[in-house]
Amino acid sequence: MTENRHGGDIYADDLAGEPLDFSASINPLGMPEDIARAAQEALARSVHYPDPLCRRLRAAIAAREGVTAEQVFCGGGAADVLFRLLLALRPRRVLLPAPTFGEYAQAAALAGSELVRVPLREDRQFDLEADFWDALTPDIDAVIVCNPNNPTGRTVPKQLLRRGLARCAQLGTTLIVDECFYDFVDDPARIALTDCVADNRNLVLLRSFTKMYALPGVRVGYCLAADEALLRRMYDTGAPWSVSVIAQACGVRAAQDTAFAARTRAYVAEQRAQLEDGLRALGFFVIPGAANFVLFRDDHIGQLAQRLRERGILIRSCANFEGLDARWFRAAVRTAEETDALLDALRACKEKAGAGQWQR
Amino acid sequence: MTENRHGGDIYADDLAGEPLDFSASINPLGMPEDIARAAQEALARSVHYPDPLCRRLRAAIAAREGVTAEQVFCGGGAADVLFRLLLALRPRRVLLPAPTFGEYAQAAALAGSELVRVPLREDRQFDLEADFWDALTPDIDAVIVCNPNNPTGRTVPKQLLRRGLARCAQLGTTLIVDECFYDFVDDPARIALTDCVADNRNLVLLRSFTKMYALPGVRVGYCLAADEALLRRMYDTGAPWSVSVIAQACGVRAAQDTAFAARTRAYVAEQRAQLEDGLRALGFFVIPGAANFVLFRDDHIGQLAQRLRERGILIRSCANFEGLDARWFRAAVRTAEETDALLDALRACKEKAGAGQWQR
Repeated sequence: MTENRHGGDIYADDLAGEPLDFSASINPLGMPEDIARAAQEALARSVHYPDPLCRRLRAAIAAREGVTAEQVFCGGGAADVLFRLLLALRPRRVLLPAPTFGEYAQAAALAGSELVRVPLREDRQFDLEADFWDALTPDIDAVIVCNPNNPTGRTVPKQLLRRGLARCAQLGTTLIVDECFYDFVDDPARIALTDCVADNRNLVLLRSFTKMYALPGVRVGYCLAADEALLRRMYDTGAPWSVSVIAQACGVRAAQDTAFAARTRAYVAEQRAQLEDGLRALGFFVIPGAANFVLFRDDHIGQLAQRLRERGILIRSCANFEGLDARWFRAAVRTAEETDALLDALRACKEKAGAGQWQR
Repeated sequence: MTENRHGGDIYADDLAGEPLDFSASINPLGMPEDIARAAQEALARSVHYPDPLCRRLRAAIAAREGVTAEQVFCGGGAADVLFRLLLALRPRRVLLPAPTFGEYAQAAALAGSELVRVPLREDRQFDLEADFWDALTPDIDAVIVCNPNNPTGRTVPKQLLRRGLARCAQLGTTLIVDECFYDFVDDPARIALTDCVADNRNLVLLRSFTKMYALPGVRVGYCLAADEALLRRMYDTGAPWSVSVIAQACGVRAAQDTAFAARTRAYVAEQRAQLEDGLRALGFFVIPGAANFVLFRDDHIGQLAQRLRERGILIRSCANFEGLDARWFRAAVRTAEETDALLDALRACKEKAGAGQWQR
């Protein structure tokens, strides 16, 4: 990585002032007051090393999720947990759909794994369907499924995952389900595999506080798994102390929340509909999503991310997602006012393009 | 790791209240006010992802160190930088002295490297001497030297390192010098290899803000190297965003400081002498050190760390340092009052042991 291959790059030199950022999928309601306060209080304690074992945080997560503290591993964001997990597993081959979150491939490359990608079909709205599991062969040691999927926002039914989990178990394959956006879905319990953790030693659930609690700058994420030996190995597949004192304090507070998440879900559902409708009205092809972001295709204007960037608005180009191309973009669900600003800017881009002021 | 193998474990269950911590070697003057303020301000910006490329922080470090920003890599603490570095190098064999900081072996194990340890001699105060380089063979791809060495506090003369650097260059071997404690030494320029970076592509200097600016809970460290391709690879040997928004803000402020570090050096020199004298007066064998910690041997009392722990004081048992054993302890240089409390407690332990109240 010599340039930022992700969304959320508000630090680039060509940006004058702070942009309106739809490229990172963060809760539009911002960081809850009590978490900000917990972070502030934790600052004074940052003259000490963090607990490398994250004992308090793991206990808080265990209480929330109904698992034991030994079934929780915390890292410096879900990405850190993912990298450590793949280094601990060192799978020969990793099965994953395309398109999906790009860091899976990065982590697999570091672990020396070969990738097997199952293309998701655009004409099926990129849904992961039962035939996904046909690609499961004995040399595949790990499968990664993102639910809801980033960047499509599509969910995978629980039953479909349960069936896959059983097939994985027969082959000794680890199923990693990335649920980093699961709590934005209208009814998270409908898709979350939390209740499968205890009885399935080959299941790992990846979770994050980053998106729901709007603390991507803080770095705290975790995973749940019954394979405690695997989780213990993960302490050695990266540096100790990767979860800062502030991150642990924020995580403890976040693990105690239910109200803020519920309020967010209601708000996001409303604003997602606004965004999708607005995009469709402007002639974009929209994949109806369940998370706090929307995937859409531009067949008419071209260079959309760059054109918006010049207007101080960031969206995520999906050109570097395997299985998508430069016509696809991901936009976060933000506040009503911000969405209006995005839609206005898109309208302006469209009019300018229609007027033939740019070469196509 | 299933238990904390480091110092600074103030979170253990058996501790009632906050202990007096001599087990982590952190600046006794605490976190400077302006860095705490920078952290506080950065909290509001933590609703955004951190800059994964740490552009502002690298520029600040480059300006301080007289290198280019491309010669700087930042990580979530020096340990994160170390792990990424070894994963990027994947050396066949790694040469290092014993005793030295334990995470080198952990990082080498993750990178699949074999260790070659050169024992340092107790009767030479564990000094790294010219014969260390005799162990350098062509199959050694990396050498790690800690200067001043943790846990001995002994420094390696610049000339000795320069000669080793030249021999490493002939063999295509990378020399990693961990200078995480160099700024506590009376005259840091006397030992720092900063001016060797630009002209030696096989040199990597590991640095930390953790110790000097008392922010171990924040997680920010860096390395300097002229091998820019190596540094670019390090972005891919771990998760992105490993340096939090707060950590980057603290780092920028720390990189601008000179006065606080100078004041700290004067204070630490004074208090180190107090601590060493006090330990010697109590009959301990002391290795005279140059850093902000002191290595000493207990030949009479036994179980010293546990006995102090029961009195609410933590020191670092060096039993798990290769080349040392359960008689050796490391104690941080703290304030005059704290040092008095430690010496009082040691005196009490000694008297109790002398009275035969414990089995030896």
